[in-house]
Amino acid sequence: MRLIKGMRLVAATHNPGKAREIEALLDGHYEVVTAGSLNLPEPDETEATFTGNALLKARHAADLSGEVALADDSGMSVAALDGAPGIFSARWAGPDKDFGFAMRKVEERLEEIGSDDRRAWFTSALAVAWPNGPAVVVEGRVDGLLTFPPRGDRGFGYDPIFIPDGQTQTFGELDPALKDSISHRALAFAKLKAALID
Amino acid sequence: MRLIKGMRLVAATHNPGKAREIEALLDGHYEVVTAGSLNLPEPDETEATFTGNALLKARHAADLSGEVALADDSGMSVAALDGAPGIFSARWAGPDKDFGFAMRKVEERLEEIGSDDRRAWFTSALAVAWPNGPAVVVEGRVDGLLTFPPRGDRGFGYDPIFIPDGQTQTFGELDPALKDSISHRALAFAKLKAALID
Repeated sequence: MRLIKGMRLVAATHNPGKAREIEALLDGHYEVVTAGSLNLPEPDETEATFTGNALLKARHAADLSGEVALADDSGMSVAALDGAPGIFSARWAGPDKDFGFAMRKVEERLEEIGSDDRRAWFTSALAVAWPNGPAVVVEGRVDGLLTFPPRGDRGFGYDPIFIPDGQTQTFGELDPALKDSISHRALAFAKLKAALID
Repeated sequence: MRLIKGMRLVAATHNPGKAREIEALLDGHYEVVTAGSLNLPEPDETEATFTGNALLKARHAADLSGEVALADDSGMSVAALDGAPGIFSARWAGPDKDFGFAMRKVEERLEEIGSDDRRAWFTSALAVAWPNGPAVVVEGRVDGLLTFPPRGDRGFGYDPIFIPDGQTQTFGELDPALKDSISHRALAFAKLKAALID
């Protein structure tokens, strides 16, 4: 089971920017088209884990398109909040994708329970599915500590409150090239490439 | 990513009979030891799908043992019961594993809702996980029709009420060699071997 260089991959997303990003993360060796460009519907993300949701999306896109499909799911988990927001990371930001609101919610929840535990981690799950065939899943994880208030305007999502282990700056402050080399997403893609590309 | 012939695999089960069965399904090319023989604890099966539970068990066994691990999860789904018993197939039989009881329960549920729809399917999910690395998942599925009362004492579980498409006998009546060649489990292992073995 291999991803043959030059082949076309369907990215289980309707966001063309994400497809370009995946092309770059796979070193330009694949043509990545979005499920949206093939008019495939988006499935509900009904699973309980990052990997489950990535697999559901990749399976759906592969079986409907008849082509090899790739999907991801990612988010931030807070130890003191029993892993929340986790798979609900995007939903905490609401329909307006207001991550300022979502980061305040994390801070408020920690204050409510009176916990000093600031441990958190980012997870990126990737799934590659063959039509009606096997699927490969990998996860990348970066551990770190939360800090409030948010710092830095690089990155996105919860990046400004997360200081990865071994660093002093948040993901919102770090140099993008450095962040891209140590991120959960980078780790997940490195595992995927080791597993499926010669 | 390949399963190299001669390597040892950890089967995420405490049942030595299951390990022997997996050895046979992999044509004797691997030494299969149980998670039980390595004193690994059994994780709770908390996922919502067959594949999710197989993956959870394989991941757990691989990460704890440091060796490549294989897990399966399987069951019967009834169309008119919205897929029940599904991942709860074994649990419907209770602690005594009384599948006579479980099959009566299926029949009673169908009578309660007054449905004539007798479509059902068996699913077998397999997962192979590398320690802290990737995992491969496959599913095999066989569609068929339910019949009551149960017929045949070959097979196990819900086999005596399930007639696979293209056959006139239940899985409980069919010649074991024939059943083993068309079963959901056979399909899943065929997919797994095509994916991971040269």
